[in-house]
Amino acid sequence: MKKLSQIAMLTLLTCLLPLLSLVSEAAMDRDKLLKDPGVYGTFAVFQVDEDWWKLDKPARMSAVSEMKAVFQKHSETVITDAYLLRGLVEKADFLVRIHSPEILSNQNFLIDLMGTTLGKHLKNTYTFNGITKALAYVPSFPEELKAELKTPPPQGSPYVIVVPIRKDAEWWISGQDARNGMMKEHTDATVSYLKTVKRKLYHASGLDDWDFITYFETSKLDDFNNLVIGLLKVKENRHNKRFGDPLLLGTIRPLDEILEILSR
Amino acid sequence: MKKLSQIAMLTLLTCLLPLLSLVSEAAMDRDKLLKDPGVYGTFAVFQVDEDWWKLDKPARMSAVSEMKAVFQKHSETVITDAYLLRGLVEKADFLVRIHSPEILSNQNFLIDLMGTTLGKHLKNTYTFNGITKALAYVPSFPEELKAELKTPPPQGSPYVIVVPIRKDAEWWISGQDARNGMMKEHTDATVSYLKTVKRKLYHASGLDDWDFITYFETSKLDDFNNLVIGLLKVKENRHNKRFGDPLLLGTIRPLDEILEILSR
Amino acid sequence: MKKLSQIAMLTLLTCLLPLLSLVSEAAMDRDKLLKDPGVYGTFAVFQVDEDWWKLDKPARMSAVSEMKAVFQKHSETVITDAYLLRGLVEKADFLVRIHSPEILSNQNFLIDLMGTTLGKHLKNTYTFNGITKALAYVPSFPEELKAELKTPPPQGSPYVIVVPIRKDAEWWISGQDARNGMMKEHTDATVSYLKTVKRKLYHASGLDDWDFITYFETSKLDDFNNLVIGLLKVKENRHNKRFGDPLLLGTIRPLDEILEILSR
Amino acid sequence: MKKLSQIAMLTLLTCLLPLLSLVSEAAMDRDKLLKDPGVYGTFAVFQVDEDWWKLDKPARMSAVSEMKAVFQKHSETVITDAYLLRGLVEKADFLVRIHSPEILSNQNFLIDLMGTTLGKHLKNTYTFNGITKALAYVPSFPEELKAELKTPPPQGSPYVIVVPIRKDAEWWISGQDARNGMMKEHTDATVSYLKTVKRKLYHASGLDDWDFITYFETSKLDDFNNLVIGLLKVKENRHNKRFGDPLLLGTIRPLDEILEILSR
Amino acid sequence: MKKLSQIAMLTLLTCLLPLLSLVSEAAMDRDKLLKDPGVYGTFAVFQVDEDWWKLDKPARMSAVSEMKAVFQKHSETVITDAYLLRGLVEKADFLVRIHSPEILSNQNFLIDLMGTTLGKHLKNTYTFNGITKALAYVPSFPEELKAELKTPPPQGSPYVIVVPIRKDAEWWISGQDARNGMMKEHTDATVSYLKTVKRKLYHASGLDDWDFITYFETSKLDDFNNLVIGLLKVKENRHNKRFGDPLLLGTIRPLDEILEILSR
Repeated sequence: MKKLSQIAMLTLLTCLLPLLSLVSEAAMDRDKLLKDPGVYGTFAVFQVDEDWWKLDKPARMSAVSEMKAVFQKHSETVITDAYLLRGLVEKADFLVRIHSPEILSNQNFLIDLMGTTLGKHLKNTYTFNGITKALAYVPSFPEELKAELKTPPPQGSPYVIVVPIRKDAEWWISGQDARNGMMKEHTDATVSYLKTVKRKLYHASGLDDWDFITYFETSKLDDFNNLVIGLLKVKENRHNKRFGDPLLLGTIRPLDEILEILSR
Repeated sequence: MKKLSQIAMLTLLTCLLPLLSLVSEAAMDRDKLLKDPGVYGTFAVFQVDEDWWKLDKPARMSAVSEMKAVFQKHSETVITDAYLLRGLVEKADFLVRIHSPEILSNQNFLIDLMGTTLGKHLKNTYTFNGITKALAYVPSFPEELKAELKTPPPQGSPYVIVVPIRKDAEWWISGQDARNGMMKEHTDATVSYLKTVKRKLYHASGLDDWDFITYFETSKLDDFNNLVIGLLKVKENRHNKRFGDPLLLGTIRPLDEILEILSR
Repeated sequence: MKKLSQIAMLTLLTCLLPLLSLVSEAAMDRDKLLKDPGVYGTFAVFQVDEDWWKLDKPARMSAVSEMKAVFQKHSETVITDAYLLRGLVEKADFLVRIHSPEILSNQNFLIDLMGTTLGKHLKNTYTFNGITKALAYVPSFPEELKAELKTPPPQGSPYVIVVPIRKDAEWWISGQDARNGMMKEHTDATVSYLKTVKRKLYHASGLDDWDFITYFETSKLDDFNNLVIGLLKVKENRHNKRFGDPLLLGTIRPLDEILEILSR
Repeated sequence: MKKLSQIAMLTLLTCLLPLLSLVSEAAMDRDKLLKDPGVYGTFAVFQVDEDWWKLDKPARMSAVSEMKAVFQKHSETVITDAYLLRGLVEKADFLVRIHSPEILSNQNFLIDLMGTTLGKHLKNTYTFNGITKALAYVPSFPEELKAELKTPPPQGSPYVIVVPIRKDAEWWISGQDARNGMMKEHTDATVSYLKTVKRKLYHASGLDDWDFITYFETSKLDDFNNLVIGLLKVKENRHNKRFGDPLLLGTIRPLDEILEILSR
Repeated sequence: MKKLSQIAMLTLLTCLLPLLSLVSEAAMDRDKLLKDPGVYGTFAVFQVDEDWWKLDKPARMSAVSEMKAVFQKHSETVITDAYLLRGLVEKADFLVRIHSPEILSNQNFLIDLMGTTLGKHLKNTYTFNGITKALAYVPSFPEELKAELKTPPPQGSPYVIVVPIRKDAEWWISGQDARNGMMKEHTDATVSYLKTVKRKLYHASGLDDWDFITYFETSKLDDFNNLVIGLLKVKENRHNKRFGDPLLLGTIRPLDEILEILSR
């Protein structure tokens, strides 16, 4: 009986999904939200608990459909991206990045996600919160460098890296000029990787135990390794009280694929 | 049988709640307690355990009513506020802030809360204790600044942030004049945000592993992010041995709504 | 059947307790043990696990009686005090302080306590060990101060605070004169609170990951907060590698009341 | 019924394994992959959970065969090595080291491994990721030393040690010459152990919360202890923000032996 | 049926134990192994899990006999000592110290121990590994001091203390002369306690996240407290990056007594 009703629900959800899809596609302007300042980003990392695997296959598949429906339902208020961390990061299976103009919407989405059958089997390992801001180009940067910084980022990169950062007191107290000087050095070190590493910055002071959440996409992890080494070599590195710990490394995959892996 | 008695209890509690409400409304002078010095504040953070979700819906609803009754019962000795952290802070679902003139009352309330059916499914992730004191306005502050500091705080803010702080030995040893100077700088940095960020301070030395519990309400998290960045830039920041870690970010919601989310 | 035998055991224990009481009252000289040097103090903090609450009421009551009998049985070799931490400290329900001239007796008591039905449901969150020593009054202290230090401590204080402390290498290497100077300053800061805060000191180096276990009783937590702030302001504070973390705050309650709260 | 099908699956897998073996043997050039730069190494540490031992013997044996098949299936895309840590490292039973030209292959292998019956009983205690690079021989090294550094490593060593390392900001900022000087000293300290300790280096900055993953094989742990003491004595040691913690010590054993130990 | 077979196994094991005993008594030269350099010591700390106590008494007794047989079986390759930590150290019930000329033997013993019924209920809280070395008497020590250092240690001490230590980079880089000077001071501080505190030193660099494992036996814990305070006062203390944390304090008891306590 129980299995039958699960299959029924599964069938129902499968039929409804395309409809939900149509609705949501009109909902949020994804490109704008990913570019605008004043947008709140929440990074929520989850790990399935051991009891999840004790559910039978139809129950797991039904739970997966229920969770997909939550993503659809909230697509009018938030945009979401999913990443698979399993295998590359301990104590973490997947990451959801949520954007919206109001962090309350991010919370309401996550409450619904965590309230599903699968959600009740998820351990929320880490959560990072941040806000996007207009890029504060340092005024004295040469035009050429500013142009390079606007180069469109690489498409179709399979890897994601998220590095939360906390600066030390000296960083903040040193004054705008000193910080500009150090950020100029920082930016110079990244220029060679603009074409292979896509970046996005979130400000986290007061929203989390971090000052910045840095987000990267790339298809060339060796380039990313060299980029980070370059950043370690500039003076700004002296002021990183924490750099990662946890650093998240994963692969960009469709939500369907991630959930399929968890319902195998 | 068991379900029937649960529904019966639920019905009974639902009938009694309005009566309890009448009683409690007369009980404590909320405004006075939130303004007076010498009041003890306890911040208790809870996370529901995985077994909670295995209870059936009527059992969860009955448990929720039982917990609401505990809030009512103690409303003569403590005032309480509830906040939803779920989705925005890992390992935390909700926060209860308790005030009373005697910390023993806070403890007795929490013992009863933790002794309910739902309470037995709660993990007490964090607890902070503090005491309010008369605001020590630094004597040399200009009258104008003192006036601004008395500006009534914003109403109806949906967000709460709690940041526990531990100062280093140099802060305490540096002497009153040095501390006054640094606090003047600190206060200057906050003035622009008086209208959008409501603040409350608790002294925690000896009551907890912190020196201060700072509490904020706001509807503009971007302002709060800028406020914190302003505070990071003053010299006092050198003396923050710990600032947050954990920082709590949540939404101010009626207890009923929070418990409804947990009993869905 | 099982319930009947539990009730029988409970009845039996209840009858035996007064007799056990008579025996133990003659056993240890409590006042002497609390005053003497060379006495070992063990502070054991426990938290009940989630399965405890799944036992039915008679089983919990029987388990409580069984545990009380362990306290009685060992009253010839150890003296014990119980404190309720639940609600005021995360991950902790109660604290037992054990004194005896031989730490082996403390261990044997705790082995028996942890071997009871309730004990098997207890998680031993923290344990601190220390030894009392003759008070090393700094020779140059004025007679008046020495007299004040002998003032009998306050009676009937409801609150307990336990702060374990680890000193840094410079403290120990700085030499006796430097330490005396700093301890003089320390003692001056505490004089005003002698009448409201009762203190006891344990030496822990080599017995635990701490150098001192400091123990306080008071009915005025605001005084205690001020006392600690006073201690933070003296130079000795520079040499506190760890001060608390965990700091334990609780209420002094009869063992019966604590166990009743846990068997509700 | 269930047991019968488990035995059937076991039999089937046992028959298939030699076939799979034939296929895979042709698959990857192990020697090349272990020598080439630009190869990604993932170190995944696992601990079996307590429920694993509650499975009956045939179920455990079937689960072991299922896992062996995953190693075979992926042998065309990754090479793997297995090590037993149980008994020598807390919270860890075994380590799998995976190499491939694309870290995605490492992840896909681990997803399959973690998706098996045994995999669902594994806790992924630690994961380290790194990339190999061409050895940057410091130009001014004497030819003789360079020759010694090319000495073929010892064969048949039973012990493995993995030490992840994070350098401090000063290391990275000090400049190439300063680092070369320190690395020359480092290399001198290791020369005497080239014949008994085999080494391999992975670069981890940006792929993990480490800068280097250092890997060692030896049959003489006393030599390795002396080698590490030698490295502690050179100036480079000042720049190890973290050295190990966790350090992994284990024995090199065939996968079959490790899985047999876990299915006893 | 199940209980009968458990009792049968218990009886069988009880009959076999004396025979096993005869075999093993000839096996390893305990005194030599405890004195020789080049011997590997492994310190494994275990805590029973909550499910252990749910086994019935005969099952626990049978499991205890099974574990004793493992100690006997390996007595030809390792020597073992058992210590009870329960009650004196949180998260730890007992400690086994294993010595053998090859750490592989220590691992094989622990694999068998952890593979027993009781072993499967043990959480391996901590493991420390070290190697003994010939005592490096500092050449300039006066003959008298060297003689005192050879004084035979006290017999029949009931207490054990294990303190793992990690030195800082300056310790190792400061040079042999500077270290000799500091060790001379260290040794002077310990001379008065040679008669009441027995010591043994293990070198751990590269085998664990420590540099030394220091092991002590004493019947006078107050002497040990004073000894440690003496060591804190010498300059070497500046170079203890970690000293304990965890420090293990326990009582030396026969394996039978320890296992009896865990099977009550």
